[in-house]
Amino acid sequence: MRVGVLTGGGDCPGLNAVIRAVVRKGVQEYDYDFIGFRDGWRGPLEGVTVPLSVPAVRGILPRGGTILGSSRTNPLKAEHGVRRIRDNLGRYEVDALVTIGGEDTLGVAATLSDEHGIPCVGVPKTIDNDLSATDYTFGFDTAVGIATEAIDRLHTTAESHMRVLVVEVMGRHAGWIALHSGLAGGANVILIPEQRFHTDRVCAWVTSRFRSSYAPIVVVAEGAVPAQGEMVLKDGSKDSFGHVRLSGVGEWLAKEIERRTGKEARATVLGHVQRGGTPSAFDRWLATRFGLHAIDAVHDGDFGKMVALNGTGIVRVPIAEAVARLKTVDPALYAEAGVFFG
Amino acid sequence: MRVGVLTGGGDCPGLNAVIRAVVRKGVQEYDYDFIGFRDGWRGPLEGVTVPLSVPAVRGILPRGGTILGSSRTNPLKAEHGVRRIRDNLGRYEVDALVTIGGEDTLGVAATLSDEHGIPCVGVPKTIDNDLSATDYTFGFDTAVGIATEAIDRLHTTAESHMRVLVVEVMGRHAGWIALHSGLAGGANVILIPEQRFHTDRVCAWVTSRFRSSYAPIVVVAEGAVPAQGEMVLKDGSKDSFGHVRLSGVGEWLAKEIERRTGKEARATVLGHVQRGGTPSAFDRWLATRFGLHAIDAVHDGDFGKMVALNGTGIVRVPIAEAVARLKTVDPALYAEAGVFFG
Amino acid sequence: MRVGVLTGGGDCPGLNAVIRAVVRKGVQEYDYDFIGFRDGWRGPLEGVTVPLSVPAVRGILPRGGTILGSSRTNPLKAEHGVRRIRDNLGRYEVDALVTIGGEDTLGVAATLSDEHGIPCVGVPKTIDNDLSATDYTFGFDTAVGIATEAIDRLHTTAESHMRVLVVEVMGRHAGWIALHSGLAGGANVILIPEQRFHTDRVCAWVTSRFRSSYAPIVVVAEGAVPAQGEMVLKDGSKDSFGHVRLSGVGEWLAKEIERRTGKEARATVLGHVQRGGTPSAFDRWLATRFGLHAIDAVHDGDFGKMVALNGTGIVRVPIAEAVARLKTVDPALYAEAGVFFG
Amino acid sequence: MRVGVLTGGGDCPGLNAVIRAVVRKGVQEYDYDFIGFRDGWRGPLEGVTVPLSVPAVRGILPRGGTILGSSRTNPLKAEHGVRRIRDNLGRYEVDALVTIGGEDTLGVAATLSDEHGIPCVGVPKTIDNDLSATDYTFGFDTAVGIATEAIDRLHTTAESHMRVLVVEVMGRHAGWIALHSGLAGGANVILIPEQRFHTDRVCAWVTSRFRSSYAPIVVVAEGAVPAQGEMVLKDGSKDSFGHVRLSGVGEWLAKEIERRTGKEARATVLGHVQRGGTPSAFDRWLATRFGLHAIDAVHDGDFGKMVALNGTGIVRVPIAEAVARLKTVDPALYAEAGVFFG
Repeated sequence: MRVGVLTGGGDCPGLNAVIRAVVRKGVQEYDYDFIGFRDGWRGPLEGVTVPLSVPAVRGILPRGGTILGSSRTNPLKAEHGVRRIRDNLGRYEVDALVTIGGEDTLGVAATLSDEHGIPCVGVPKTIDNDLSATDYTFGFDTAVGIATEAIDRLHTTAESHMRVLVVEVMGRHAGWIALHSGLAGGANVILIPEQRFHTDRVCAWVTSRFRSSYAPIVVVAEGAVPAQGEMVLKDGSKDSFGHVRLSGVGEWLAKEIERRTGKEARATVLGHVQRGGTPSAFDRWLATRFGLHAIDAVHDGDFGKMVALNGTGIVRVPIAEAVARLKTVDPALYAEAGVFFG
Repeated sequence: MRVGVLTGGGDCPGLNAVIRAVVRKGVQEYDYDFIGFRDGWRGPLEGVTVPLSVPAVRGILPRGGTILGSSRTNPLKAEHGVRRIRDNLGRYEVDALVTIGGEDTLGVAATLSDEHGIPCVGVPKTIDNDLSATDYTFGFDTAVGIATEAIDRLHTTAESHMRVLVVEVMGRHAGWIALHSGLAGGANVILIPEQRFHTDRVCAWVTSRFRSSYAPIVVVAEGAVPAQGEMVLKDGSKDSFGHVRLSGVGEWLAKEIERRTGKEARATVLGHVQRGGTPSAFDRWLATRFGLHAIDAVHDGDFGKMVALNGTGIVRVPIAEAVARLKTVDPALYAEAGVFFG
Repeated sequence: MRVGVLTGGGDCPGLNAVIRAVVRKGVQEYDYDFIGFRDGWRGPLEGVTVPLSVPAVRGILPRGGTILGSSRTNPLKAEHGVRRIRDNLGRYEVDALVTIGGEDTLGVAATLSDEHGIPCVGVPKTIDNDLSATDYTFGFDTAVGIATEAIDRLHTTAESHMRVLVVEVMGRHAGWIALHSGLAGGANVILIPEQRFHTDRVCAWVTSRFRSSYAPIVVVAEGAVPAQGEMVLKDGSKDSFGHVRLSGVGEWLAKEIERRTGKEARATVLGHVQRGGTPSAFDRWLATRFGLHAIDAVHDGDFGKMVALNGTGIVRVPIAEAVARLKTVDPALYAEAGVFFG
Repeated sequence: MRVGVLTGGGDCPGLNAVIRAVVRKGVQEYDYDFIGFRDGWRGPLEGVTVPLSVPAVRGILPRGGTILGSSRTNPLKAEHGVRRIRDNLGRYEVDALVTIGGEDTLGVAATLSDEHGIPCVGVPKTIDNDLSATDYTFGFDTAVGIATEAIDRLHTTAESHMRVLVVEVMGRHAGWIALHSGLAGGANVILIPEQRFHTDRVCAWVTSRFRSSYAPIVVVAEGAVPAQGEMVLKDGSKDSFGHVRLSGVGEWLAKEIERRTGKEARATVLGHVQRGGTPSAFDRWLATRFGLHAIDAVHDGDFGKMVALNGTGIVRVPIAEAVARLKTVDPALYAEAGVFFG
């Protein structure tokens, strides 16, 4: 039996840990052969492969990124995409696919499995932790750790200069990273995409913090938006070199706070450092266990399923269900954090 | 309403985060007063207190240890212990106690609450993660992270010198830290207290690792023991200064491996560094949420209960149930890790 | 004898370590009294003080920022600045000042000491390491460490997506942080303010890196500028909220690389995280030794002098000389790094 | 021209960074060929080689250990050692050797170069920083950083339990790691091999620290010894398995402190974690520059020389001089730290 493996979407610490666990257990326990497909769905679509064996996965557990490369290629939008995948799987004599990715990558896996009979098992991956049906996804803990360390560092600058520091963290549609790192870092305001924020209220919290002789840290998810009418984030105009101007919510908010409160404010946009580098111990553990259980699912012929974390155990759920809706921050959970605002 | 807070047992990263959350929410949402008791149950037993207020908990979130001090004092073994506690609570006009601790500290809280009507709410704390009824306890993730980083470092020494490195981690009765850090660190053998190990089998794994031109890392929990008859760890003899000789399992095992395989072997005992220092982001999040929910339980008059993590949510369980039995590593879970041995 | 202490300019890891060493040795060895002045030169100018004693400096060694606060107030530009400082020093019975700061703060100290007979001793502080007469300044090693860790993380993202990652680090006038972190992080291009860069050459390096199947990291100091005519960094225009648009060199360069090479490129601006948080061991050591030697200089009545690192020893140099010129990266040193470009 | 490279002695973070720099510059600037010798002097002695090229050194900059392996083989003590080395160099057509190592490895290089005309250039390596003629050696900063982080962590445990914590760090003959990490970590006592310590005085400092309501950290180099007559560290006796009992100075001291002061005391022996893992940014910088200058020395035909750090510059010194005497801690420097004791 030969199993193909691919990783799709944005890179995420822990991908290599999954690949290693899949291969180690597959070879040792089930005597499988493996083949790696390059760059997500581009691999099976275009027939681009890399050898995948026990020696190939040695030493990759602590390394970020993915040895298989990644892309956002959607084969369902490519001409004859399904047929080309089927042909390439046949050509390489691949009996099953382990697909590691987020909403998009797994959405394809669900369709291929459920509608076209191509045997896929899914492993959930999203640094934003916004995938339903699993308590956590790997990469998230690493990102929260990096963001929290940054917030720890920014506290000392804020205090020394009595300045507002706005930290923009990842999270386009869900505020999980902002909420966890904001709570862990002792932020004074946390803003998430799930609830439009009122800049005046943010300014009131900021001002109140200064009154107790401390300087505030505001953590804002990149996807957080102010209440209607307050701003146009991207005005679409271009600079003298023809580059479109982008002004992220972090920088916008820092300027607004400075304008409204009269206090100096600075923005820090953490960006890509949140998704790179060695995975945290938690993420290595989770990714490894996902890998072990994914290859078990292949062995059981349980296709169209995704492995998921449920409490401390790993379970299987239909991929289609898992990708059906985004997991966003519950209003009650967000309200819980409110006690620390201001 | 005045609430007393105490921390008992071994120190653990996240204790201060719990205290801060309890006080912040108690003051802000419920308008409570607080008083800190020093050194676990010694505080209410002997009437030793410290002021506890919002300013007192500022800046303690990222700090390890506990601002309240800790001890292993058991008031149930002290003369008139229960009466003295009741008297002191009366004297300081304390209406409820938030007790943060492990099996012993919480066992006392259960007895005081259930049998003597002294209103206690419990917050579980054990760096070893061996408390039932909660998915995880805070401190554990930090300890696993520190141990994993150490294992990462030891790999390079092992490879450079083609040497066996034995790492002894915490875990007297349960192998959680060994299992998690061993898996996350890519150890080649993991030994836990739950299953007696056969040194010959360990040596076989070690030898097999060398055959593929790599050097092995063996992670062993301090409470792991060899199969019967293999060793007497502590021989009770004394050195020339009257000190009893202690030889931990890590050092014993390194010597045995060297003796049996002929390969150089060294032991590293991580010790106290695993329990100190700033808590990981995960532990700060968990400890903070435990604190918020503990003070809610006080507000609800829900005494004799302990807060616990269940999946991603915080629930309440009877303290007495939680401390009734140790949570050890499931044999199936340990077997899962076996694919990486050797 | 009473000694005043102040910290001026941008905050920097190690300031608290200096303060602690000054006070600990001053009290213990010389039996001095201390007084802290708030917010750099604003303190003595406006007579704003804080108590400073052995208990006040306990536990501050590992903490970033400064317990005395900081500002960029220049008393020489204030009306009757010198007289007001002299009056306030008299009022608080201060016999000497330990002034910790960069070019500006120390420049004032030199003038006050040399021209007005106000007894000042200087301690050099600049995260950019661009102060003459000392091998290194504290804070620099911490900043380089943080930048290097970020570059380590970005490598994995660059490789996984075959993308160019541009990292903008601190360094307005000198490229020390870029050079050290670029070398330490294995960057493929390093750009510093001391030498205008040619974007076409940068693009050639980037392209060559891709040819060997790896993805490039470009480290650029915030003060690096392209060769004449290539760009106008800040166009002075405003967005719809009246905010002036700033486009840093990092983002500009990423866009240019993408435009010219056709490869995806992303910018990360590390910003304030480089200057906050706990100092590295090296910086704690250097800052502590600076503090010990600064109070020795006070004791020797050796005013107008600054402590400086020379090899492994601490020496004293005239402040006026030290601030006379900026320490920039030597072209030969920069050329040495060139072997790693491309 | 073909250059051989070898690494000898204990492993040390930064070895790979040296190798990479040597090869990168040698290939690119001087068009040299390279060959790696395995396991220090064992390689040229027994003719064991590995290929060494630009692809072979990719990605090794941040990795601890050495890709060439290491050993303590002394070819001068092997039969016909010099002749065998000369033969093997001839057989592999090696024109010069870059030898990276400590006192022993470099001592051999000096003899081979000076007395036998075998062209060697040296790169100093000792994690203990005890090599003369260079301000610092790479690996030392990493070790100090790891030890400092451990001390930071232990402070919180010491405070929470009002316990003495003794930390044993590396340093058999010189106290550099103890001195630097002790100062950086805010230790209350630092003990080094250069000065015999009086346990009673240590106990007095410990007691004084408790009087001001804090718990003490004692940092002790593994090679520190008490004043004559106080102890016999290793009694040479054996346990029931025939293992010789070793009781390090850290554990001995903790027991003695406990016995004499009545305060609980615990020892932590950091051990091998200090020498493994990724090098600090400073060490990567230093190691990289050593490598670049070592290959320059080869190119200049400047054999029998070692590269060394002098201030911020790299210089060349005769290897024979550098290894002639150990660099120990100056009594004046140690006295400087004394202000923080107690």
